[in-house]
This record gives sequence, C-alpha cells and structure tokens, in this order.
Amino acid sequence: MGAGQVSVDSINPKVLKCQYAVRGEIVAHAQRLQQELKANPGSLPFDEILYCNIGNPQSLGQQPITFFREVLALCDYPSLLDKDKTRHLFSSDSISRAQQILDQIPGRATGAYSHSQGIKGLRDTVAAGITARDGFPCNSDDIYLTNGASPAVHMMMELLLSSEKDGILCPIPQYPLYSASITLHGGTLVPYYLNEASCWELEMSELKRQTEEARSKGIKVKALVVINPGNPTGQVLSEENQKDIVEFCIEEGLVLIADEVYQEDVYVDNKKFNSFKKISRSMGYGEEDIALVSLQSISKGYYGECGKRGGYMEVTGFSSSVKEQIYKIASVNLCSNISGQILSSLVMSPPKVGDASFDSYRAERDGILSSLARRAKMLEEAFNSLEGFSCNKVEGAMYLFPRINLPRRAIQAAQAENSVPDVFYARRLLEAAGIVVVPGSGFGQVPGTWHIRCTILPQENKIPMVISKLTEFHKAFMTEFRE
Amino acid sequence: MGAGQVSVDSINPKVLKCQYAVRGEIVAHAQRLQQELKANPGSLPFDEILYCNIGNPQSLGQQPITFFREVLALCDYPSLLDKDKTRHLFSSDSISRAQQILDQIPGRATGAYSHSQGIKGLRDTVAAGITARDGFPCNSDDIYLTNGASPAVHMMMELLLSSEKDGILCPIPQYPLYSASITLHGGTLVPYYLNEASCWELEMSELKRQTEEARSKGIKVKALVVINPGNPTGQVLSEENQKDIVEFCIEEGLVLIADEVYQEDVYVDNKKFNSFKKISRSMGYGEEDIALVSLQSISKGYYGECGKRGGYMEVTGFSSSVKEQIYKIASVNLCSNISGQILSSLVMSPPKVGDASFDSYRAERDGILSSLARRAKMLEEAFNSLEGFSCNKVEGAMYLFPRINLPRRAIQAAQAENSVPDVFYARRLLEAAGIVVVPGSGFGQVPGTWHIRCTILPQENKIPMVISKLTEFHKAFMTEFRE
Repeated sequence: MGAGQVSVDSINPKVLKCQYAVRGEIVAHAQRLQQELKANPGSLPFDEILYCNIGNPQSLGQQPITFFREVLALCDYPSLLDKDKTRHLFSSDSISRAQQILDQIPGRATGAYSHSQGIKGLRDTVAAGITARDGFPCNSDDIYLTNGASPAVHMMMELLLSSEKDGILCPIPQYPLYSASITLHGGTLVPYYLNEASCWELEMSELKRQTEEARSKGIKVKALVVINPGNPTGQVLSEENQKDIVEFCIEEGLVLIADEVYQEDVYVDNKKFNSFKKISRSMGYGEEDIALVSLQSISKGYYGECGKRGGYMEVTGFSSSVKEQIYKIASVNLCSNISGQILSSLVMSPPKVGDASFDSYRAERDGILSSLARRAKMLEEAFNSLEGFSCNKVEGAMYLFPRINLPRRAIQAAQAENSVPDVFYARRLLEAAGIVVVPGSGFGQVPGTWHIRCTILPQENKIPMVISKLTEFHKAFMTEFRE
Repeated sequence: MGAGQVSVDSINPKVLKCQYAVRGEIVAHAQRLQQELKANPGSLPFDEILYCNIGNPQSLGQQPITFFREVLALCDYPSLLDKDKTRHLFSSDSISRAQQILDQIPGRATGAYSHSQGIKGLRDTVAAGITARDGFPCNSDDIYLTNGASPAVHMMMELLLSSEKDGILCPIPQYPLYSASITLHGGTLVPYYLNEASCWELEMSELKRQTEEARSKGIKVKALVVINPGNPTGQVLSEENQKDIVEFCIEEGLVLIADEVYQEDVYVDNKKFNSFKKISRSMGYGEEDIALVSLQSISKGYYGECGKRGGYMEVTGFSSSVKEQIYKIASVNLCSNISGQILSSLVMSPPKVGDASFDSYRAERDGILSSLARRAKMLEEAFNSLEGFSCNKVEGAMYLFPRINLPRRAIQAAQAENSVPDVFYARRLLEAAGIVVVPGSGFGQVPGTWHIRCTILPQENKIPMVISKLTEFHKAFMTEFRE
C-alpha cells in the first residue's frame, strides 16, 4: 500500500461490517466465470450463466410494457409531439398521456430538478392510484418519489436510528437491504423468525417474544418491517394477520414499515394483496393512531423497470415536525430521477378500459403475470421432487426459498474449506451448472437449517432446462456426499 | 401528537442537526408565495417568482441538447429503431449512437439493474472521454456511475467517517451538500477559508493552519474537499495552486475529493479547467502516491440535465481492499438509473466533427456557454454598482457570491426578529421583488461578513428585469436602513 492510500483499518467500521449477499461472493464468482466463458468458450461444463440471484426481470428477457416506454420516450424528447409522423410511431393515448405529464411539470422541463418529494402532478397521480387501490384517501403531500425502494429504506433508517440501542424488527429470512441499511446506520436488527412449517407465517407470539427480549437487553424498538408479499419467502399475509400486526404496532408504539413492492405479484387465487394502509384505515385507525410507511417500486410487479430506479414511499401518521425532517433528508439529495418519477405515476395509473393501448397493455401484463405463476409452480414442484429439498408454495413475489437438508458429509466438506454449508452448495451449483442462486445465510435462517433463494425469472421456455441442470447437479452432489 | 406518532426528540439527532440552505426556509417561503400568486393574482408586488437559488438551468428555460435527448428517447423505446419513419424524426448519428449504446447493454435491456458501478460499455466511454480530456489514461474499473454527485459525496463520507473525531477539510464558503453529508455521517467539518480579497484564492497557509489546528484538537483529518470551479464562489484554480494542493495532500496523507462538476463552465480566457487527476499525473504522481476522487455530474456544464440524475466518480489510489468496500456500498443501492448512465456517457463523448449532429450540437453548446458568460458579467457589474455590494469575478460555475456590507440598523432589525442578517436581507428581497437567492450563512462565511448566492441562470432576456428589480429593491432597502 502506498503512502497516500487509505487502509481498511482506517475506514468506517460500519461499512466493513455491512453485508449484501444479493450481490455478494457467489455473484462475483459468476461474473468471473462469465468472463472465462467469453475468453475460452467450451472451457466450462456449461455455456451460459443463468442468473437466478436477483429480481431483475428485464435482464433475463422480460420486455417492458410498451405503453410505459412510449410515454417515457415522448417525455425525453418532447419535440416529437410537434411532428406529424409521431402519430404513426406512437399510440394515441401515449401521446395524450405524455402531453398531460409534460403539462404537470413546471416549464415542461424533464431535465430540471423537481420538488424534493417529486413533481406535484405526478404525486397527485400516484395518490389517486393508491386511493383507487385502497378505497381510502391518499394525500399527495404524503408521497415521496424515490430512486427505487432502497433509498427510501435508507432514509427511514437514517431518521430512526441514532445508536446501537435503537432496534428495528425485521423478519428472518429478510431481504438483506434491511440488515445492510441498519448496519450502515449503526442500529440493531431485532430478528423475528417466520415459521417455515406453516408457509412462512408471521406469528404474533414470536413478534412479542422478540420485542420483549430486545427490550430486556436495553434496545429501544422503534419500527417493525414487514415484507408483503414476502422476500425471499414468497408468502402473502392474510387480512387477519395484517390486522394483528397493526394492533401490535399501535400497542407497542412502533412505526410500521410496509415493504409492498411486490403488490402486483400474487399468484394464488385464495390470497390477495392488501396494503397496510387499507387494513389500518378499515379498522378505523387514522393518522393519529399509527405511523405507517408504505414502500412501492417500479422494479417489481409486471413492470420490472429495475434500471429506471423509481418508486415511492407513502408516509402517514408522523407529526409535522418529523415530516419536516424527512423532507430535509430528501432535499439533501435534491430529487429522484424524473424518468423514474414518470414511471411511478404510470404504474399507479396504467391504461384504462377504452384507452387505445388498453388491450395490448392488458395482454402484456397478464402474459407476464400468468407466466410468472406457471414458472413459480414448475420450479416449486422441481425443488420438492429433489432428495432433501422442501419448498413452500410461492404465493407471491419473485422467489423460491427452498430448504435443503444437507448431508452431514457435505457440511463437513464445507467446513473443511472454511465455507458456510449453503454457500458451499451454491458455489458447487454455479461451478457445475452455471446457475446462480443466493445462499440462505445471506437472508438469515433458523440456525442449523440451510436454504437457497432462487428467482422465478428465467424465461418460461428456459425453465425446463434450468430444472434439468439443477436436477442433474443435485443428484451428483447427493451421490458425492450421501452417507 | 397521537399515540403512534414519532417525536422529534426520538429521531436521529444528526438529522436534526443537518442543514441544507439551498432548499431551506427562503425557498419554502418562495413556494408559499408562488401558491399565493396562483390563488390571488395581483396580491403581491410582483407577478412571478424568479428562482436564483439553485443551479437548475432547465427550470428557467434552458433547453436540453437535442442530440442527447434523441439518444435517450431511442434507448427508452428501442423498437423505434426497427421502424422506417424513425429516420425522418431522428438524426442519423443519434440512431447509430443509440444502437451502439444498446449493444453495450447486456440483453439491450435499459430496464435492467446494471453492474453496481454502471454498465461496463458506458464506463468505457466515460473513461475514454476522461483520457482524451486529460491526456492521461483512465480505467473504466475506477468509474462509478451515480445518480448525480450527491450520492457520490454521501458514499465517500460514509466510507471515511466513523465518528466526530474524523474530519474533512472543506472550503468556506462551501456547497452545503458537504456540511450536510458530514453532519449526517457523524464527522467533523474542518473549515478552510477562501480569501475573498484575492478572488476567493485557496491559500496553502490557511489549509496548513486549519489542518494543524484540527489535529491539535484530536481530529483525524481524512480528506480535503476542493470545489473547482468554485461553488458558490466561482473561482477557477490556477495550475500552480492545484499543484500545491496535490503536494499538500500527499504530504499530509489526505484523500483529495475534487468536486469538478463545473468543468465545462469556465467564462474567462485567462483560466482553464484542469482536473486534479491530470495535474497529479503530470507531476509524476501515480496511484501509489495519492488517493483521488473526482466528481462529475450531468446536472451542470452546458447540459444542465439535473432532473435526469447522472454523474460519475473516478476513484484512484485506493487499495483493492478499500475498493471492495466502495463497491459494496454502491451495490447496496443496486445501481444508478440507466438514463442517467447513458447521459453520463454522452456528456463525456458528445458528437464529433463530421457527425451529422455536430454543427447543431456545437451551436447549442456554445450558445448556452456564451450566454452564461454574458449573464455572469451583467449580474456581476450590477452587484458591483449597488451601494454596499462588492462581487468578485465569476470565472466559472453558475453563481455570484457578492458580499454585502449591511447597515448597522439592518443588522439590528434582523436581530430584533431573531433572524440572521443575510437571511433577513434575502427574505426582504423575496417579499419585495420575488427574487429567490440563498443567504451566505447557508454556505459559511467569515464571521461578521454577509453574502448572498445568486445564480446566473435566468434566461438572458430576463436579466435586465432581474437587475432592475434587484436595484429598485436594494435602493429602497438602503434608504430604509441607512444611518
């Protein structure tokens, strides 16, 4: 190390401590193998890397919704709207929608910083979409348009956490954004375990027990994170369960942070998505009763616009003095990107019956969602057919989180190379079959159990191939390590 | 406050402490007045609010560069590229550039999360642009594409600051993003004062004095922030001065954080922009000698694409183990938005001589930059003609930072209403003339001196009106408070 260089010993220890498995060592290894494949085709036992590690649908071939992209292109280059030929290239409702959006932007300037919470007219559209979804009013002053859900989570953690004595209740398994953000902001993650035996149920007794245990250690528990539909676990909460959670937050004085980014991704007939805002309002609770933050993202749903970085948080039940502080944090980053803001308004207000694009929009949306449901079912059945695997039903979201009962000899082999057993399994799977999954240890799991997270996102015609490669690998693995 | 609500006493005190004047109380007041004007036209002594508070050119009518927006629109809606009519609506080089960019994106998916540092092909383009600018090589592995410069600053502060014992040298006056970010990350801002009497010169003696003083208080000084061209002060550093700064950082073992977002905005013939990377390499210093972070943004320059949120940081001279940590922080937010990434590549690689768009691109660029230079001069002369004002030359960037020698009675009047004198002046200016400026106290200033920051961004045909309103207000103000 040179004289002018910074060493890891001198940097922020919270950064060192932070972990983010979704882009962790297995993914880095996969990227190296991909380069190897490119440099020396045929050198590996597979000819492509199948990324099942991250909810990134368009990277695997999912097409964006045409209407959304038409509107974006017109807003990017508004002088198209003055030209006759544009009518031959764009749908009539994308043209009128782009006009309407540009009229909502001061000076029609899509290249200007907006209000720190996002463009007022777009927030109005988002608020109207939430009102229509829930049947309860939403105020656009409560909406903060963000560069995806991640910055929203960071903002809330920055607001709520002062020291390691401040705790946030998070499900285990959890999406590692939460653990990473809590670590970076110096707080304490208070885990509550979802019950795998009853399809990853969120049990109130567990929530209470963990809250009390944390308090007995001097932790001030400030908020409860609920991910619904679940990531990585895929369960959809029942209305009854949601009501109990709302009551719990009110009784315990907790902020309820509802990660609702998979609200469009429900694949079973006996469950439906309900926002926590709708549930709490339907119970008669208002702003004075419960502090609630609802997160939505344009990266998920049927839209899958991950690269556009958009989303919103709806913040209700905070005092005006605290809201001023949230506004200030938002303003330090000036604003979120306008394309993401526009897309956030579009996903909350897609084409309606009678609009020129409605039929094609509906066909695209339903095609994606019904295919995701079929893929989830195929992969779930495949995992359940493999020796030692058991996989809960994927009711929603984009992931399977099967449990694998690893042979004792595989666990010993992992330990012999200083590896965590599920990381060992994931690395072997990658090296033999080119399939990238995330080890369950990146999300948290009951000690002594092992899982992997696998997305349902490879294109449908590739699923049989994924299953056959997985099956072949797993049989060989079990043959190698079975006792 | 209801039972479920969070109080300001229970939130992170660092958030409470953080200040961000660029979107502070004067701006909030302006937004209220704007609503008042809309609701009751004619109720105020002006009929429009003139926002001179923030470097947001397109909000004031600056048009985006056509070529950039053509490419963006094609990348957002790539099926345009398959249609014949597109050739009649888009320039031929925007079509070929969009093709080229899409070919660089895995799966041509502009809606997919990218590599955490940004799309490799776009980083290659940025790196080639830096290499061409500096005459020294740039490696695309050192480039992190970001949602503007703000997140880059936060990332570096998060990396470097562990406690209030860690200090960052910042110019005073400074852009308040730095003070806000240092406060939010729990570190200490170590101020060094620019010398107003010699056109905001950065004096080495002052740097040394402040560094020693901070160290004598037990502060570990970790980095030096230099903003060049200066914000809010508008000076452009001389090559000699830059060399001294590089030597200083090497001697003192400091990371040099070079805020170079105004690199295209230089308005005087006797100064030119030199990156600190170029300066240090031309002195023979390499990666092993100095840790250097260079920030660039698509929000500034002649492009002014604030709302698109794009930019990059070039990180050199860090050990590979520290780079892994920077990568990890970047990966927790997954990636910056792809439209911003594409624009970052475009501003570092605009049309070249011979390209179909070159002439129109050059005309647009030169039109903006020469007009900015004229506006800077007109406003500078106007301020210098006003009683009590003195204003340094605007060599670069987008702001004037004139000093105002406030009458004693004005200071007393401010104190009588518990206001800071420059805030008092700015509020009076807003209420009388509708002109929004930022009080100097938001940037820091030598105690007992008062300033305002005023952008040079109102459209050129409005500048005479801004000047006449300002002059009229100021004369009345002085008449009211002159002793």
